[in-house]
This record gives sequence, C-alpha cells and structure tokens, in this order.
Amino acid sequence: MRYFEDFHVGDTFDLGSEEVTEEEIIAFARQFDPQPFHIDPERARDSIFGGLVASGCHIVAIYMRLFVNGLLQYVASMGSPGVDEVRWLNPIRPGDIVRARFTVVETIPSRSRPNRGILKSMCELFNQHDELVMRMKGVHFVGRRPGAAEERA
Amino acid sequence: MRYFEDFHVGDTFDLGSEEVTEEEIIAFARQFDPQPFHIDPERARDSIFGGLVASGCHIVAIYMRLFVNGLLQYVASMGSPGVDEVRWLNPIRPGDIVRARFTVVETIPSRSRPNRGILKSMCELFNQHDELVMRMKGVHFVGRRPGAAEERA
Repeated sequence: MRYFEDFHVGDTFDLGSEEVTEEEIIAFARQFDPQPFHIDPERARDSIFGGLVASGCHIVAIYMRLFVNGLLQYVASMGSPGVDEVRWLNPIRPGDIVRARFTVVETIPSRSRPNRGILKSMCELFNQHDELVMRMKGVHFVGRRPGAAEERA
Repeated sequence: MRYFEDFHVGDTFDLGSEEVTEEEIIAFARQFDPQPFHIDPERARDSIFGGLVASGCHIVAIYMRLFVNGLLQYVASMGSPGVDEVRWLNPIRPGDIVRARFTVVETIPSRSRPNRGILKSMCELFNQHDELVMRMKGVHFVGRRPGAAEERA
C-alpha cells in the first residue's frame, strides 16, 4: 500500500496501455454522449472529425481505468474533490492504442485533516504515435502512513 | 438548430432529470473505475463514504447524457477543447434522482476561425434534495449562424 508520504514531486508512473475499439467507442457514446461523430461511422465521415472519434467523457474514463488498475488500487486513496483542468488535444479513433502516464506535481499535507494529504497530478494519455491525446490536472486525497500523524503530534 | 448567436450570458437551460440505479453505478465502475466503494456494497459500507457511491467519472458522464439529450443535440456543436474545472461536492448514491442545469457564462467570437464561437458554461448537477452534486466549467465550440460571418466581413 502506497501512502501520501510515498509520493514525491516529479515521480512518474507508467500506467500501461490498451486498444480502443470501434465497438467500445460506439457503446459508450450511445449510453452517455450520443452525438453523430461518436456513434455513427457514416455521419462521422462528413463531420468536422472526418470519422468516428471517442467521446471526451470516454477518454477521461479510459484514463481512469488505466489509472486505477496501474496505480490507484495500490494507493490509500480517500477520493478526489475534482479535476482542475481537462484538455482534449487529439482524437481517439477506432483501433488506436493509448497509454497513460501519471506525474506528481505537488504534495500538500492537509491542515484541517491530519490523516490525509492532497496530491496534485498531471495525467496524460498518449496514442500509438506518441501524440498527446489528453492532459488533465488531477487532485487526489491520499491517506497518511498510519502512525505518521501521531509522530508529528 | 441553435447557433452561437442564439446564446447569451445568463441564459439557463434545465436539462431534465434521471434516477441513478445501483446496477448502473456498479456496471460503470466495474468497467472504468473499479474502486471498492464504487463496485462492492459490502466494502463500501466500511469505506469513508459509508455506502456505495457513483464514480466521479460516471457523474460527469451522467451530466453529459442529460446535456446532449436536453440541449446539445439541438446546437451546431463543433466539439470542445476540454473542461476548465470539475468539483464533486456530494456523492450520488443508489436511487438518487439527479437533474442538470446549463448556464451560459461567457460568449467569445473566435478570432482565428470566423465560422465558430466559444461558449463558456457553468454545468451543474443537483440531487433530489437540491444539493449540488457536481459543478463543472465547460468550454464549447459552437458554429455561427450561416451567413453571419459574411455579413460581418
């Protein structure tokens, strides 16, 4: 288990990669973002994207899956207050293989709650051409190592 | 069809409401955010949330569905560069009924691309107790009314 004390500014974690299929792009968008360029290959061809692309919301969800499986499941996570910024820089198209990276940007011990710290992160998703697909500024509550708070008291 | 010219600062749109079921919370989280408090009612009870709660990523997706069905499908949308901020303020629990609201905060004609404008929005999701569940600062590219650019030229 990884605690707040185990993260340092500049630490980088490669979170693995996965292929994004046309089937998954359409299934997600039918449920949550049914715009023509996300659900209909024909109409997508005539759209500003020139073909089917993943929903921005789906791109965030794909990052989240890689993040949970590649790092967060081993962290004493106490949730998140939100995200500071998301930027979609390149589309994800069917068959793209994306990889995720997590970099620690800031570590802030909580003043009001001594059992946790706040971690700020740069979350990045790249495609198989090493183009940046998404950049997101994450905020994470992470539990302190048991006993660490008492030691400081 | 609603164009950039049809939006004005302060315009508010009620985007409808829906119930969020335990089944949907678990199904989404199993696929994209498999943390115990999102997928396992037993372990969720012992977590900091005291019960099952929807993934933050799922909350954004639920907003997106209400937004597309309630407004965006009638807008000359040209995509989005991202989101400026997301804040999760209250959890969504099984059986909660959430409603979404979209408010226009800023309208900026694009300098580089005369066929579009940039819309900044405050996106809000409330629960059945009128508590704010999520607040998100959206950014949207919206097509200008055909002929509007020529008229200005």
